Amino acid sequence: MPPIELRSDNAASVTPEILQAVLTANDGSALAYGGDEITARLESLVREVFEHPGARVFPVTSGTAANALSLSALCPPWGSVLCHQTAHIANSEGGATSLLTGGAVMVGLAGDGYRITPRTLQAALDSIRWGDPHHSQPAVLSLTQPTDFGTLYSVAEIEALVGIARSRDLRVHVDGARLGNAIAALGCTPAELTWRTGVDVVSLGATKNGALSAEAIVVFDDRAADELVYRTKRSGHVTSKMRFQSAQLLAYLTDRLWLRNAAHANARMAELGAGLERLGVELVGSPQANLAFAALPDEVADRLAAADVLFHRLDGLARFVTSWETSAEEIAAVVAAVESALS
Amino acid sequence: MPPIELRSDNAASVTPEILQAVLTANDGSALAYGGDEITARLESLVREVFEHPGARVFPVTSGTAANALSLSALCPPWGSVLCHQTAHIANSEGGATSLLTGGAVMVGLAGDGYRITPRTLQAALDSIRWGDPHHSQPAVLSLTQPTDFGTLYSVAEIEALVGIARSRDLRVHVDGARLGNAIAALGCTPAELTWRTGVDVVSLGATKNGALSAEAIVVFDDRAADELVYRTKRSGHVTSKMRFQSAQLLAYLTDRLWLRNAAHANARMAELGAGLERLGVELVGSPQANLAFAALPDEVADRLAAADVLFHRLDGLARFVTSWETSAEEIAAVVAAVESALS
Amino acid sequence: MPPIELRSDNAASVTPEILQAVLTANDGSALAYGGDEITARLESLVREVFEHPGARVFPVTSGTAANALSLSALCPPWGSVLCHQTAHIANSEGGATSLLTGGAVMVGLAGDGYRITPRTLQAALDSIRWGDPHHSQPAVLSLTQPTDFGTLYSVAEIEALVGIARSRDLRVHVDGARLGNAIAALGCTPAELTWRTGVDVVSLGATKNGALSAEAIVVFDDRAADELVYRTKRSGHVTSKMRFQSAQLLAYLTDRLWLRNAAHANARMAELGAGLERLGVELVGSPQANLAFAALPDEVADRLAAADVLFHRLDGLARFVTSWETSAEEIAAVVAAVESALS
Amino acid sequence: MPPIELRSDNAASVTPEILQAVLTANDGSALAYGGDEITARLESLVREVFEHPGARVFPVTSGTAANALSLSALCPPWGSVLCHQTAHIANSEGGATSLLTGGAVMVGLAGDGYRITPRTLQAALDSIRWGDPHHSQPAVLSLTQPTDFGTLYSVAEIEALVGIARSRDLRVHVDGARLGNAIAALGCTPAELTWRTGVDVVSLGATKNGALSAEAIVVFDDRAADELVYRTKRSGHVTSKMRFQSAQLLAYLTDRLWLRNAAHANARMAELGAGLERLGVELVGSPQANLAFAALPDEVADRLAAADVLFHRLDGLARFVTSWETSAEEIAAVVAAVESALS
Repeated sequence: MPPIELRSDNAASVTPEILQAVLTANDGSALAYGGDEITARLESLVREVFEHPGARVFPVTSGTAANALSLSALCPPWGSVLCHQTAHIANSEGGATSLLTGGAVMVGLAGDGYRITPRTLQAALDSIRWGDPHHSQPAVLSLTQPTDFGTLYSVAEIEALVGIARSRDLRVHVDGARLGNAIAALGCTPAELTWRTGVDVVSLGATKNGALSAEAIVVFDDRAADELVYRTKRSGHVTSKMRFQSAQLLAYLTDRLWLRNAAHANARMAELGAGLERLGVELVGSPQANLAFAALPDEVADRLAAADVLFHRLDGLARFVTSWETSAEEIAAVVAAVESALS
Repeated sequence: MPPIELRSDNAASVTPEILQAVLTANDGSALAYGGDEITARLESLVREVFEHPGARVFPVTSGTAANALSLSALCPPWGSVLCHQTAHIANSEGGATSLLTGGAVMVGLAGDGYRITPRTLQAALDSIRWGDPHHSQPAVLSLTQPTDFGTLYSVAEIEALVGIARSRDLRVHVDGARLGNAIAALGCTPAELTWRTGVDVVSLGATKNGALSAEAIVVFDDRAADELVYRTKRSGHVTSKMRFQSAQLLAYLTDRLWLRNAAHANARMAELGAGLERLGVELVGSPQANLAFAALPDEVADRLAAADVLFHRLDGLARFVTSWETSAEEIAAVVAAVESALS
Repeated sequence: MPPIELRSDNAASVTPEILQAVLTANDGSALAYGGDEITARLESLVREVFEHPGARVFPVTSGTAANALSLSALCPPWGSVLCHQTAHIANSEGGATSLLTGGAVMVGLAGDGYRITPRTLQAALDSIRWGDPHHSQPAVLSLTQPTDFGTLYSVAEIEALVGIARSRDLRVHVDGARLGNAIAALGCTPAELTWRTGVDVVSLGATKNGALSAEAIVVFDDRAADELVYRTKRSGHVTSKMRFQSAQLLAYLTDRLWLRNAAHANARMAELGAGLERLGVELVGSPQANLAFAALPDEVADRLAAADVLFHRLDGLARFVTSWETSAEEIAAVVAAVESALS
Repeated sequence: MPPIELRSDNAASVTPEILQAVLTANDGSALAYGGDEITARLESLVREVFEHPGARVFPVTSGTAANALSLSALCPPWGSVLCHQTAHIANSEGGATSLLTGGAVMVGLAGDGYRITPRTLQAALDSIRWGDPHHSQPAVLSLTQPTDFGTLYSVAEIEALVGIARSRDLRVHVDGARLGNAIAALGCTPAELTWRTGVDVVSLGATKNGALSAEAIVVFDDRAADELVYRTKRSGHVTSKMRFQSAQLLAYLTDRLWLRNAAHANARMAELGAGLERLGVELVGSPQANLAFAALPDEVADRLAAADVLFHRLDGLARFVTSWETSAEEIAAVVAAVESALS
């Protein structure tokens, strides 16, 4: 058996449907920089999938670009972005938001389950001297959905947070690098999880969930979209043969491929979670999507790694991520390997 | 006959070898963010092709990213980048260099044939109050090779310009969005056109010449490369499944595919140039690579467009660009269509 | 006789009225960061002097800050600022506008007498591909009044340029480092030269015309002013004991001190110009304000410098600048020294 | 009796010596932008006072400018600045460091007494994935001395922290907006508190301690100083009549004026602290310099304010700041007013 890949959904390969879409897109010539038909069809499909007739979409090639550009269109340079203190945008993007917003600062809020809570959000807003230029002015609430630890905000939780944010005129961004996993897990619609609850801009991940190199900024606000026309270009995020990014995203959103892939990954994680629980392994947070962190003693983790299970170790925890191509057999083998490592 | 595509080499499709490389790369899982084997092999091949044992390579997904990031690693925020006044970096990248350098300014120099000349470069350097912070300090010479108008710098011309630049400690960048076309046209080696003449960093284009979405920053200077590790990430230009960009570039550089594709495109342009000349159509500059601008009366251009020849009109000129997939039959048809349009 | 100072009006000392105002302001404690009474009185006086009930004022301590901050509130990061190719903001501020706007670019236009003309402005606007993110979008017209060469725009000329700028929704900035000299020379009102012709923001210089260290950004547009509250602070341009900057500006604008000082300097320059003309020395442009450039042979300039006349040499020309404290005796002595140097 | 000013040392007036220096500097003309004799003498005096023959000084007009510019010369755009979570640079400068560094991020560390401790610093450094561009790389340790809460780092504490910082090649900055108060309180020399313990750059405050509008960046590292030549200019922080800023700083450092003023302010705060303690009022941290925060019930604070004692209320605490002009009589009156308000 080859090594079992649980390091990251980024490490997975490309789904057949998306690869086929790339091949199909390679038919003749097409205008560059998004002036092609496939990109036009993508925008139509995004509007349909998100049930929003004015939604606009900007294909990019990295999640960091999607996040930092989204935030740059929502946050003035003197503003701050409120996010959870464990958020990817604050910890794992090398300061991209600072660069692309022209100097906005990130403010990490506390909150159980790696989620901002209404209480921590309200407290953060209450502590600000509004209108005083000595203090960065909160301008955006950014929610990571699911979080980097695999936990989820319910629709009601997002509504509550957006309500508080709106009371101070904050805009709302969702880092949806794994948005499909959240939608699949919550059983809601894309619209319910985004603009219907007041979200302005979504970073819609695709690469982790089966694409080759395509992410999308989905925008429900025209002013932000108008800025992104320029912001994407001047940061080098308008690919010339954009049809190939658009084709990936088009296939991704067609026939619910993204949600099927995500549901698959979630199901594998649920199996892994159940298996680990059965073995008495403590999980940090409950695996609601396709990631989990487990407290494994070092020697157990060493043995598991020696058994060709690929996973990351972060701050003394083992991180497992399932993907669209993780199989039930692999999960069973991993659980068995953990059991053996424990004994 | 379908329309004949001469608007841009960006409009062309992907060469079979590169498409196959993408398919082949999709075999199993691989570490994200460049920690994969294909990316490692790419760096080895770049060193071989450029005959430089310390060359480093950063795959990105747009030419604008390649250029602006290259310049950001060479130019301090208070510096200026000297380029030809028609350079792509100054006119067609939406201010990307200003953004990614943190505020450096572009200075456009005159020069016949869309090329900087030793005289204009020397004059620009002589006019500077060096060390006076009121004045942006020239820090980089950027050469577009071939130029956006299809003209070329010879190796000797580059040497002369680099010599002048070095006399004032400027670093040297080459915008090689079509570098393959230049190398194919000049019959020199990649090394001769770059580091052997003193070039520090090259933006190596691949997308225009048959790739899907891959450009490379090739760096011959370790300090610049060390910075690019961070600069690429914080601008969102490190793709997660980088193996797919690397695979494109690996195929591109393997067995001289890039030079073969480029020679093909150049040959088609030579045929087009000869054909137009025969018809008495004036070309702006002589087509040394795969672009040419022709002075066509408006009504002639209208008739040509009506004949399903696709081309751009810029400032009263018709721009024709050939690519790796332009056929000799297409060129013959275009020449015939021009002849017919003229009569 | 001590050396005669004609290098720069920046080299002059502080007028007695302003020095006294500083001393007077030093009476007891006052809230920092502009929360003091003197700053409030300054805003009232600015509204009165400029005849604009909603004008707002931001005291800063350098002309570069006033210019770059003004432009940052008018120009988006992807925009461009159109100015004359000899403009101070483009040539002598070390790239400050690029920094403080977050990457906007400067476009230098041609035009006789160091002035943008309706024709060059219209041509610049006509050459743009509007809405195309590959190209920096002109967003601001910046006029230097008087120019760095001592020439002036008439009110009618400004109106014509603003009209063209408005046709493309450009905002209008005036670099008024020497605005008093322009008003004094033209005999118009501050309102006529600014918001009545459509100017949005003015950099109002005071230091060159007798202040200690005070410049002001005068804003006729609330949205720009609202941004400047934050932009001034985050660039470090809100002094803590702002009352001392405000006191300088208050004295400057009181009883037309600024216009009296400026008229004095202009008169001295007129005398110098007339004297030089009489001697057959060619002036570049006609000295309408308090600067002039004269074509003096090198050996003449050497002799003049040896005679303790202080002036700058730029590009083969001698630059003379008069100030509020230049005396008629000094000008007579300079003319005599030139005469002697010529012979 | 007029109101007693304890809101801020920024609210105090200018000391006679400094005002006299400004008047004296106004003698004849002088080269602009620091090319004058007073600025040259300032640099000599700084070298003498700090006992460092290569020290360089950049006069600016705000503390925010001094801090953000200092950090911009020490921290690359992809770096992070480690400071205490209560630091002024992170909380009260409107994001200036993000702007002037080109996007560096601030990391707030915990630590008792508003001071970073060796433990929290070491933990922060240990948690970093060094060399991984996903994570902002710590590049500077910034210490506020005294802190915004009036506490102090001892020389030994700074040495310990610098030692840890150096182990990871961090540069060290001191925000010395009130450095004189720290030196006066600790009884050490300027050198001992700065470069002798490994500090690279100091923001040397003067305005809070009696100047009109002058702060200084004192640099012990030539590379940083070389950058600041350009960084100060392009952010608009080179005043034209710099001699007036330099004159203030020259008087400030002459005959230990800065230390005498600071000792005076510290002594008044010690009296206030002792008085409050006697009344049983709890102080947050012990007032080692010229600031203190006291836990006063709201109604007591209201009564105190009604008694014409001027102070700020922050987060439920009363903040008192003494200055060079606070008198012993005023402190006695304040203590009496508190006593009366308490009863």
